Amino acid sequence: MSKVFQATASAPVNIACIKYWGKRDTKLILPTNSSLSVTLSQDHLRSTTTSRADPSFAEDTLWLNGKLDEIKPGGRLATCISEMKRLRKELEDADPNAEKFSHWRVHICSHNNFPTAAGLASSASGFAALVYSLAKLYQLPASPKELSLIARQGSGSACRSLLGGFVAWREGAAADGSDSFAEQIASEADWPAMHALVCVVSDDKKDTSSTAGMQRTVETSALFSQRLTVVPERMRAITNAIQNRDFDTFAAITMKDSNQFHAVALDTDPPIFYMNDVSRAIITVVTEYNRVALEKCGQRKAAYTFDAGPNAVIYAPRENMKEIIELIVSYFPQESFNDPFQLFGSAPVQGRLMDGFNEGVSKRFAIGAVKTLIHTCVGDGPRVRGDAESLLGHDGLPKSLA
Amino acid sequence: MSKVFQATASAPVNIACIKYWGKRDTKLILPTNSSLSVTLSQDHLRSTTTSRADPSFAEDTLWLNGKLDEIKPGGRLATCISEMKRLRKELEDADPNAEKFSHWRVHICSHNNFPTAAGLASSASGFAALVYSLAKLYQLPASPKELSLIARQGSGSACRSLLGGFVAWREGAAADGSDSFAEQIASEADWPAMHALVCVVSDDKKDTSSTAGMQRTVETSALFSQRLTVVPERMRAITNAIQNRDFDTFAAITMKDSNQFHAVALDTDPPIFYMNDVSRAIITVVTEYNRVALEKCGQRKAAYTFDAGPNAVIYAPRENMKEIIELIVSYFPQESFNDPFQLFGSAPVQGRLMDGFNEGVSKRFAIGAVKTLIHTCVGDGPRVRGDAESLLGHDGLPKSLA
Repeated sequence: MSKVFQATASAPVNIACIKYWGKRDTKLILPTNSSLSVTLSQDHLRSTTTSRADPSFAEDTLWLNGKLDEIKPGGRLATCISEMKRLRKELEDADPNAEKFSHWRVHICSHNNFPTAAGLASSASGFAALVYSLAKLYQLPASPKELSLIARQGSGSACRSLLGGFVAWREGAAADGSDSFAEQIASEADWPAMHALVCVVSDDKKDTSSTAGMQRTVETSALFSQRLTVVPERMRAITNAIQNRDFDTFAAITMKDSNQFHAVALDTDPPIFYMNDVSRAIITVVTEYNRVALEKCGQRKAAYTFDAGPNAVIYAPRENMKEIIELIVSYFPQESFNDPFQLFGSAPVQGRLMDGFNEGVSKRFAIGAVKTLIHTCVGDGPRVRGDAESLLGHDGLPKSLA
Repeated sequence: MSKVFQATASAPVNIACIKYWGKRDTKLILPTNSSLSVTLSQDHLRSTTTSRADPSFAEDTLWLNGKLDEIKPGGRLATCISEMKRLRKELEDADPNAEKFSHWRVHICSHNNFPTAAGLASSASGFAALVYSLAKLYQLPASPKELSLIARQGSGSACRSLLGGFVAWREGAAADGSDSFAEQIASEADWPAMHALVCVVSDDKKDTSSTAGMQRTVETSALFSQRLTVVPERMRAITNAIQNRDFDTFAAITMKDSNQFHAVALDTDPPIFYMNDVSRAIITVVTEYNRVALEKCGQRKAAYTFDAGPNAVIYAPRENMKEIIELIVSYFPQESFNDPFQLFGSAPVQGRLMDGFNEGVSKRFAIGAVKTLIHTCVGDGPRVRGDAESLLGHDGLPKSLA
């Protein structure tokens, strides 16, 4: 029985607090501004990828969520795969004892444990898992930072999913992108109390893809250049806040930056909308929650942020999360709630408002306006997975197709 | 029978193409930027006000839409009334033959012919009608421009309702506000084909008042200062476009400026939202309509704009309006439609999409999402109304209360 060249890895989702919106180089995916995100736990949301190299494979092939995906020549997938093969080739050339398989074709099988219909961005975790599984397959000594340079060329925000904890993506200045990488500014162990509640919001409108949308903003928004002058100070301030576990400052900056990102999207011609009436109601409810909290204890207790879609992610210290879930359920009732942190014991989650909360700030929505709530926390970077979790069968084809 | 000192006037609504948002002086109501609006026809939307002075009146009293309204000392109403009395006093002091009644108390009765529930801003037409009726009562020689300085102190945008056609409100530079007035840049006769469709949109959220909202933007939006650098060129360009009846340029600037105003509102902390999902759908539908028009004839055919609320106003040349109404009715069906320009004859209005229109750009809404459509056009400035239209009875009290 011949040796199998294969590796399986998983990678996390990340949700930015300082948003990435705009490229200065669309081919290399170099951003117009630095960004910063929180890596969410893979215990709840992850992409898992198995990569295998074999001399018998006729061509590089990728299956995503059980379906064959096209690897377009010169496209983003092809770039990531050829960059990883190039690194393996370098290693082979430098070490006469290294096994020579960088020229073999690969089969790659990837799976997200969250439904695409949930509207959660899967390209970040997906490209991070792809790059990380290939790095393990090729036994590369590359650091997460080096791998982030490659994942970035698959999907910009994917570079931030190569690390756990709190991650900055430096915009860099080099024309070749060599200084536009991700680095950890604090680990998940530095601030383990950072929790997140993903509110999956229904949507029946057509989305503008973020790739197309961000370049339209760069080209047409008269306000966009001002945003670029604002971000560096926000990066400094939120990094400090994270390193000092200053949630109040973290929350203030996170919410402002989410709103500013959506503001420049709206200032685009034609305008781009990602938030809908439910998103706006979540903002209103969190704003009122913080108003009461500021009055009572001088500190914000939650921070919303919205990516290029209607879903909210609410960051909060673990100790506030029960109260926040009860608040959200009051306005956006749920059929059921999965309670991974055992906040509610065996009792069903009931809506409840904190003392002093002005319940008239928003109307109450029907079941389904927020489709599901996912409670998670800050987590680690990509993980190597054992062979038992391989997505490819002995025949090198997806197990899900067997 | 003694002489009655009384005048009745009506004043129009105006809807800005370059938005007023932000004060540099909150007491004098001096704006941070110039703005520009279209005055809508009083045949369809107007405020009517009767003012009477009488030695028997015990105090200045105002009724708005049949209800007693408080004239707060030092407030905006009190300022407008006392400024008008001051001008009368100057006239009396200068002319020994002038009748002396500037010291008498006044009764003022005002009525809007559109329901407050429609969510149309009535403060502009209301303060313009108030000031104009007092100017007639006091037989002042003041020009509309001079009166606009006073109406401005009641409600900023009211200054633009003192003139018909296309009106610029100059931001001015003087600390006393003496150069922050409205002036006509083109009359309604210069471009009579300019029509407007008001789409009254349902809303169940709480609004942030524009007075409070705009100052929060000035204080907290990091993008707002950039807007101030953008507006002067837009003012120049749209003035040119209007004077040349260049609808395409007028439309491009109008839509961009509406979106930018809502963008800085969203960049405010906490953020301010005025548009809702129906507003966004109207934008999407007009954007697609213009896309087809640009493809077919290289010209935009409609321009949306949104004030501090969810209602859309769609500007378009008269010749496009039938097509636009059919388009809007396709997505936002109406129980009925008042057809003042006889576009549809006796047939009911049916939804219809132009050739090439991608009908999937938006879902179709239910009846009631757009509560009503009001078709109107550019119109003239305030009008003197005859005694038959007086809102006050012989006893100096509102006829509506008799």
